[in-house]
Amino acid sequence: MKNRQEWILDVPSPARFPRDPQDDGKDAGAPPNAEVVREDSRRARGLQTLTELTGDAGAAAIDAMRDIAPEFADWIVDFSYGDVLSRPGLDRRTRQLATIAALTALGNARPQLKVHVQGALNVGCRPQEIVEVMMQMAVFAGFPATVNALAVLREVLGGESGG
Amino acid sequence: MKNRQEWILDVPSPARFPRDPQDDGKDAGAPPNAEVVREDSRRARGLQTLTELTGDAGAAAIDAMRDIAPEFADWIVDFSYGDVLSRPGLDRRTRQLATIAALTALGNARPQLKVHVQGALNVGCRPQEIVEVMMQMAVFAGFPATVNALAVLREVLGGESGG
Amino acid sequence: MKNRQEWILDVPSPARFPRDPQDDGKDAGAPPNAEVVREDSRRARGLQTLTELTGDAGAAAIDAMRDIAPEFADWIVDFSYGDVLSRPGLDRRTRQLATIAALTALGNARPQLKVHVQGALNVGCRPQEIVEVMMQMAVFAGFPATVNALAVLREVLGGESGG
Amino acid sequence: MKNRQEWILDVPSPARFPRDPQDDGKDAGAPPNAEVVREDSRRARGLQTLTELTGDAGAAAIDAMRDIAPEFADWIVDFSYGDVLSRPGLDRRTRQLATIAALTALGNARPQLKVHVQGALNVGCRPQEIVEVMMQMAVFAGFPATVNALAVLREVLGGESGG
Amino acid sequence: MKNRQEWILDVPSPARFPRDPQDDGKDAGAPPNAEVVREDSRRARGLQTLTELTGDAGAAAIDAMRDIAPEFADWIVDFSYGDVLSRPGLDRRTRQLATIAALTALGNARPQLKVHVQGALNVGCRPQEIVEVMMQMAVFAGFPATVNALAVLREVLGGESGG
Amino acid sequence: MKNRQEWILDVPSPARFPRDPQDDGKDAGAPPNAEVVREDSRRARGLQTLTELTGDAGAAAIDAMRDIAPEFADWIVDFSYGDVLSRPGLDRRTRQLATIAALTALGNARPQLKVHVQGALNVGCRPQEIVEVMMQMAVFAGFPATVNALAVLREVLGGESGG
Repeated sequence: MKNRQEWILDVPSPARFPRDPQDDGKDAGAPPNAEVVREDSRRARGLQTLTELTGDAGAAAIDAMRDIAPEFADWIVDFSYGDVLSRPGLDRRTRQLATIAALTALGNARPQLKVHVQGALNVGCRPQEIVEVMMQMAVFAGFPATVNALAVLREVLGGESGG
Repeated sequence: MKNRQEWILDVPSPARFPRDPQDDGKDAGAPPNAEVVREDSRRARGLQTLTELTGDAGAAAIDAMRDIAPEFADWIVDFSYGDVLSRPGLDRRTRQLATIAALTALGNARPQLKVHVQGALNVGCRPQEIVEVMMQMAVFAGFPATVNALAVLREVLGGESGG
Repeated sequence: MKNRQEWILDVPSPARFPRDPQDDGKDAGAPPNAEVVREDSRRARGLQTLTELTGDAGAAAIDAMRDIAPEFADWIVDFSYGDVLSRPGLDRRTRQLATIAALTALGNARPQLKVHVQGALNVGCRPQEIVEVMMQMAVFAGFPATVNALAVLREVLGGESGG
Repeated sequence: MKNRQEWILDVPSPARFPRDPQDDGKDAGAPPNAEVVREDSRRARGLQTLTELTGDAGAAAIDAMRDIAPEFADWIVDFSYGDVLSRPGLDRRTRQLATIAALTALGNARPQLKVHVQGALNVGCRPQEIVEVMMQMAVFAGFPATVNALAVLREVLGGESGG
Repeated sequence: MKNRQEWILDVPSPARFPRDPQDDGKDAGAPPNAEVVREDSRRARGLQTLTELTGDAGAAAIDAMRDIAPEFADWIVDFSYGDVLSRPGLDRRTRQLATIAALTALGNARPQLKVHVQGALNVGCRPQEIVEVMMQMAVFAGFPATVNALAVLREVLGGESGG
Repeated sequence: MKNRQEWILDVPSPARFPRDPQDDGKDAGAPPNAEVVREDSRRARGLQTLTELTGDAGAAAIDAMRDIAPEFADWIVDFSYGDVLSRPGLDRRTRQLATIAALTALGNARPQLKVHVQGALNVGCRPQEIVEVMMQMAVFAGFPATVNALAVLREVLGGESGG
């Protein structure tokens, strides 16, 4: 194995390794220098990613939180979507499948799993790919985690409103 | 959104949707009909996937478990590697990144995270992709989960033995 | 304490230590040699155990999963029920109580807890034994885990449909 | 199924259903009327159960906690061992196996798992029974939970001090 | 840093460090000598704290549990409220905020979070303080934990019955 | 109870409700308008809070992460410390005790618990207050969570290096 020194030299900068045709560089405006980035670019990037993943549903859900915790609503947009989920370095489909893996394994974030299953479909994940990730979680988090996640997927695919 | 009926018709059979050039069909021998598959094909497929992901390390670790729980050692090979991790339907890199997402989020499976980080590197994931998945987990499972996972990644990359 | 060597010599083979009168040997057909066991015996054993634990309810629930994840439905039957829950070595009542302990402690698998509470009653666990296991979990997983599990038990005992 | 009313009538009082020859009634002094029980009987009962399960090791570990949190040391003796683990209603072996199930599934309580594996051996659980419970947890909490628990069991059986 | 020896000498007895004007000494009757404390004082202290935190709701919920697990209902009163939540050493508002932090982070105890949010309001926590604690949990347990906890807070504040 | 409308009117703006003498307004420079705040103020505020809580240790730990995940190191400073832990609205002692509650309950973030125990001492929490919070967690997350957290506290207080 390479040692860490070699590995560091070997790592492409995040801006240089889109690996998927879908990752067509639209994220390339990400911050080259975090210190001088203004909040408004985080906000704009966050809102764009939020819309790409969730359509109008995500913004509505976040707005509903503004009466009780307005700064937290901002953090979701600025940090979760603006800093994290909009990063280049992984194509969006892999990001969404990784999110589904985590939420399936944690097992206590059903509303969020529902949002991100829809988001995965929105960025082009096939239903069967989502099924595959959820099935794989049976190995790492147990069968109940997978059963309950598949039920969420079925709701989203069937357009059911259940919860 | 499509309703479930349409979705079902739309789903390609698992055997037909490798999406990644690395997924070159070597998994294509997966069971077309589970009822008539013999245990020995699960075993063979499991051992092959185990070796591809972990080199010799995984087999050694599993063998060390045979004195105390031999059937469980078999289950790891037959079920985890033979049934689950060797499935087509997701390329191996996405599978490994999904595993890393889950183990990072769960936060209580450090030895397994180490094995699967190594496995991810073995099937062609770039270190930066693993970093990306671990960073993303800060949103879903909290910052400590990411910090502790990055420490495992550093150990693997540096060839450190720490634990 | 005995060292590991002595312990290994001391361990009866799984097939030889039913410890409970209820464990009357009906499991004795378990695989003497995993390598040559065919899938269809796992399937048959799994379906039998599934029915013993859940009556018709379990099979119906699993069948409902076949449209979205047919292989996962098979894994539940073949692995969870066929390989694991049908093993000799523990009487069924102890197996079900151990399952209830785990699902109570994990706290995020309410539907599965409900199924296995019913399964425990089906194989002869007394309600008070289930209560005891759930109460004991307050020590290891906290009081909320026990409160929420007891609510599941009450639903099952009262024949309530709540969820 | 019986309704709740019938079930309640059907439940034997805890003091009346020891189901195991080992459960020879030595717990029969448990509180017939909680309101008038004095702390010193909880303490005495707790210390007795602590010794039965852990030999001298448990008392030593708890005493080491007295400098920093003396009341918490008391709670362990009085509540965990005096109120909970000393209850009749389940034989001690089933209690210990339920504890092992929970701690295996939770996966973040390794020191406690070690204590209770030893405790299980002390009250007559066979190593293979402990293996069975740990293996079963792979279904409910994932394979890493079982792997890590089996490592703890091996330490205890081998008299290893590793951690 | 002080070493442990110095620290021990430095620790005021629990009874001597109320730090908050609200902590006016009404807890001062706490056990000076655990060995001679009778159960009935734990019970009385527990019921008083239960009422202070939950009004009549808590007692009703606990009474509803008496048919199925009467001793567990007692443990909640005697141990959770009588031994733990009624302790001096932390003012009640900090205790409730710590509880809210834990239940938000655990994410699988929604009914209990609801009770303790109401309890926090009952002992004088401001809604914005509860919001702050829940927001802070995004760092340690992830954003879904906070989103779901804020939904519980909104229910309590809005007098909604959902749940 | 007030309805939500009344509650919203009743909530002081975060900048107006320091409740503790230690919260002397040094945080008052927090963003009045998030949209125009520049990254460099988040960074500066984060570094200041990091130093107040962790002395030099935190910065060193974060710097060590820069080779492998530099943006994540920034997120810790900017988001965790700059956005969240530096907020007014709760005095720092309550913030640290809430963090300790969460990390004790989660049970899989030992290194972070150690940092925040030290941070709590640094901002004036008394050891006994930390003990109280950890003891309280036995109710919500089980006794092992508290035992393991107390061991971390003892390490910090004793200046032990164990880990």
